[in-house]
Amino acid sequence: MPQTLLKCTRCRASYPLDMAALRCGECKSPLIVEYPLGGQARAGPQPPGWVGSPIPLPIRYPSSFVSLGEGNTPCVALSAVGEILGLAKLHAKLEFINPTGSFKDRGTAIMLSMAKELGVDEIVEDSSGNAGASIAAYAARSGIKAHIFVPASAPAAKIQQIRVYGAETHLIEGPREAASQAAEEFCSENSLVYASHNLSPYFIEGTKAFAYEVSAQFGPDLPQHMVMPVGNGSLFIGTWKGFQELQMAGRVATLPRLHPVQAEAVMPIVAACQEIDWAPGPGARTIAGGISVGDPPRKQEVLHVLRSTQGTAVAVADPAILRWQRLLAEREGVYCEPTSAAAFAGLEALMETGAIQKGDTVLIPVTGFGLKDVPPL
Amino acid sequence: MPQTLLKCTRCRASYPLDMAALRCGECKSPLIVEYPLGGQARAGPQPPGWVGSPIPLPIRYPSSFVSLGEGNTPCVALSAVGEILGLAKLHAKLEFINPTGSFKDRGTAIMLSMAKELGVDEIVEDSSGNAGASIAAYAARSGIKAHIFVPASAPAAKIQQIRVYGAETHLIEGPREAASQAAEEFCSENSLVYASHNLSPYFIEGTKAFAYEVSAQFGPDLPQHMVMPVGNGSLFIGTWKGFQELQMAGRVATLPRLHPVQAEAVMPIVAACQEIDWAPGPGARTIAGGISVGDPPRKQEVLHVLRSTQGTAVAVADPAILRWQRLLAEREGVYCEPTSAAAFAGLEALMETGAIQKGDTVLIPVTGFGLKDVPPL
Repeated sequence: MPQTLLKCTRCRASYPLDMAALRCGECKSPLIVEYPLGGQARAGPQPPGWVGSPIPLPIRYPSSFVSLGEGNTPCVALSAVGEILGLAKLHAKLEFINPTGSFKDRGTAIMLSMAKELGVDEIVEDSSGNAGASIAAYAARSGIKAHIFVPASAPAAKIQQIRVYGAETHLIEGPREAASQAAEEFCSENSLVYASHNLSPYFIEGTKAFAYEVSAQFGPDLPQHMVMPVGNGSLFIGTWKGFQELQMAGRVATLPRLHPVQAEAVMPIVAACQEIDWAPGPGARTIAGGISVGDPPRKQEVLHVLRSTQGTAVAVADPAILRWQRLLAEREGVYCEPTSAAAFAGLEALMETGAIQKGDTVLIPVTGFGLKDVPPL
Repeated sequence: MPQTLLKCTRCRASYPLDMAALRCGECKSPLIVEYPLGGQARAGPQPPGWVGSPIPLPIRYPSSFVSLGEGNTPCVALSAVGEILGLAKLHAKLEFINPTGSFKDRGTAIMLSMAKELGVDEIVEDSSGNAGASIAAYAARSGIKAHIFVPASAPAAKIQQIRVYGAETHLIEGPREAASQAAEEFCSENSLVYASHNLSPYFIEGTKAFAYEVSAQFGPDLPQHMVMPVGNGSLFIGTWKGFQELQMAGRVATLPRLHPVQAEAVMPIVAACQEIDWAPGPGARTIAGGISVGDPPRKQEVLHVLRSTQGTAVAVADPAILRWQRLLAEREGVYCEPTSAAAFAGLEALMETGAIQKGDTVLIPVTGFGLKDVPPL
C-alpha cells in the first residue's frame, strides 16, 4: 500500500515520516510531504473544528491533534484602501485573527501534532518572534518542552509573549541567522529535535489550509492575484501546495498569480528573480522583522512557485511599509505589524509597473497583529 | 405593523430606534432593543460572513453593516486546567481571537452599524481600553470620527492601540468613572452622540451573538454553567438575551447558570447579591482593568440575569487572577489578559463552595488578549 512520505524538493529522494528529517540525505535540499495519489485517496483524520472540505494531512490518529482553533479567518473587502489604489476588488484575509496573533498558528498546529504523534517531548526552534510565540503556545498546550532562540533585537512584545507561554527563551545577539546557528548547535549538543518552522515539512502542511479556505470563500472564481510578504515563504509555499492539491482534485481551475514582497534591505528572492548580485550587508535592517531573512532555506521553492504562477517579486522601502501600516489602521480598522503592511506597499508597486491592473481581483493575507510589534506612532 | 423599538429595562416605556437614546426619559433606566414577536417574525439582514442561524438585529439595510469578521470564535477543551481543578468537562470560547483582540468587537460591530445607518458621523466613548480600541477600529472602518476618553492609568498597549486606529484619544486622570464623566461633558458641550458601550442598547445586540454560537457549537445540551468576568456586564447580559431569544424560538431548553466574577477590590454586583454594604474606596484597584467598574449602569439587569439563571456572583483576589493567567498560558497556550483570567479564579472559588460540581460541564469566555495588557512576568 502506498505510504505518505517525505520527498526531497530537488532530487525527489524519499524518506519515512520523521520529526528529525529536515533535509535530504543526498542533496541537502528541504523536504516536503507527499501523499499517495496526491492526497486524493483518503484525507485521513481532520483537525477538531475544521469546517472545510477534507484536507490531506500526515496525522494518523485524531488524538494527536494539538489545536487552539487556528484558521477559519475572516475575509473582508478593503474598500477605503482599494479606493486609494484605484482598485475596486481588494480583499484581505485577516490571518492575525489567530490564537497567538499570526498566521504561523496554522503551521505550528500541524507541526506540533506530528511531534506529539511521533512521541517527541522536547523541541528547539529559532524565530524572529511570531513563530517562536506560536510554537511556545502549542508546545505549552501539548506538554512538550520548547526552547526558542530569538534575536535579541526582536520586539519586546514578541519576546515577552514567548516567555509568558513558559518556553525557555534564549536571546541571541547579532543578525537573524545567528539565532538559527545557535539553535542548531544547541540541538546537536543536547541531541534534541530541531523543530524549525522554516525547514519542517509539517509546517507547510499546516499553512496550506489557507488555500483551502480561500477556495471555500471565493468559490470557483479565485482572486487573480495574491500578494504576500515573504521571508522564509512558509505561507507562500503552503498556499501553492494547497492550490495544487485542489487543482488535482478538480476543485480549482486557474491558480492566482502569487507575488512575493520583500524589504529593500533584505531581498534575496527579488535579487534571484531579477538576477541582481545581492548579499545581505552586515547592517541590513528593516522594520519588517518577519521578512528579514537573508538566505531562506526554501528559496528555490519560492522561486518555483512564483515562476509557475507567473508572479512578480517586488521589494519595498521601510517608509512605504510604515505608511501602509498607518493607512490600514486609520482607514480600515486593521492593525497589522510592519511585515504584513509590506504586502500593501508591494501591491502599490505592482500596480505602478502594470503587473496588477485596476480591474483585477486581489487578495492579501494580513499575517500578524500590530500589537506584537512597535506601534507606528 | 409592529416595530422594533427601544424599551426601558425597568418601566417598559418604549422609544423609537435612535443613537442618542441611552436612558429612559421617564425613570432614567437603561434601554434594550425589543423586536416584534420576540424577533421570531423576521430576523432581517444578517452581518456579512455570519454563518449561524438567523439572528434578530435592528439593522434595516445590508449596506449599513460595519464588519471586520468579528465573532465565529473557536471553542476548545481545556484538559490541563480542567485536571488542576478536577473538572473533566471544561471548555473555553476564545473571544480574544477577534479583530481588535477582545469580545467587544461583537458589540461594537452592531453599535457602529446602527450609527452608520442612522447617519451619525462623530461619536464619543469612554473605556478602560478594550472597548475604546474596538470602537476606534470600527469607527475608522466606517469613516466615523471617534473621540475616546481613557483613564490615564490604562495599560500603554491599549492606549497605543486606540491611537493607531486614528481616534482622538483623551487621557483622563483619576478613577475609571472620571473618564465617563469627562466623555458625557464633552458630548454636551459639543452636541455629539455618546456611543457608550455600557449604555448603548445596540452593543448588547452584538454581544448576544455569543449565545447563538454557543448554541450552534454545543447543540441542545448547553453547558450547565458559564462563568464570566463582569464589569459593565455587556457580554453577560447579551448572552442571556441571546439565550432568551433562542428559548422563545424553541431551540434551547434549559439555560446555563450564568455566574458573574468580579475583583475583590471592585465588587458592586457581588455586594448587591450578598447584601453587603460596599462602596468603591478612593484607592480601589485591581489588575483586572476590564472589570474595574464601581457602579455599572446595568447593575439591575446583571442581578436579574444571575437570579433568573440561579447563578452565583463571586469575587476573587488579584494574586489568584495572576496565578490563573500564568496557568492558562503555560498549560494551555492561552494568553489572556487579567480580566479574563479572573473567570478561572472565580470557577475555582465556585467549586470550593460547591456551586459547581466536578462532573458539571462549564464554559468560560476568554474575553481579551494578553498582548494588550502588562505581561505576567
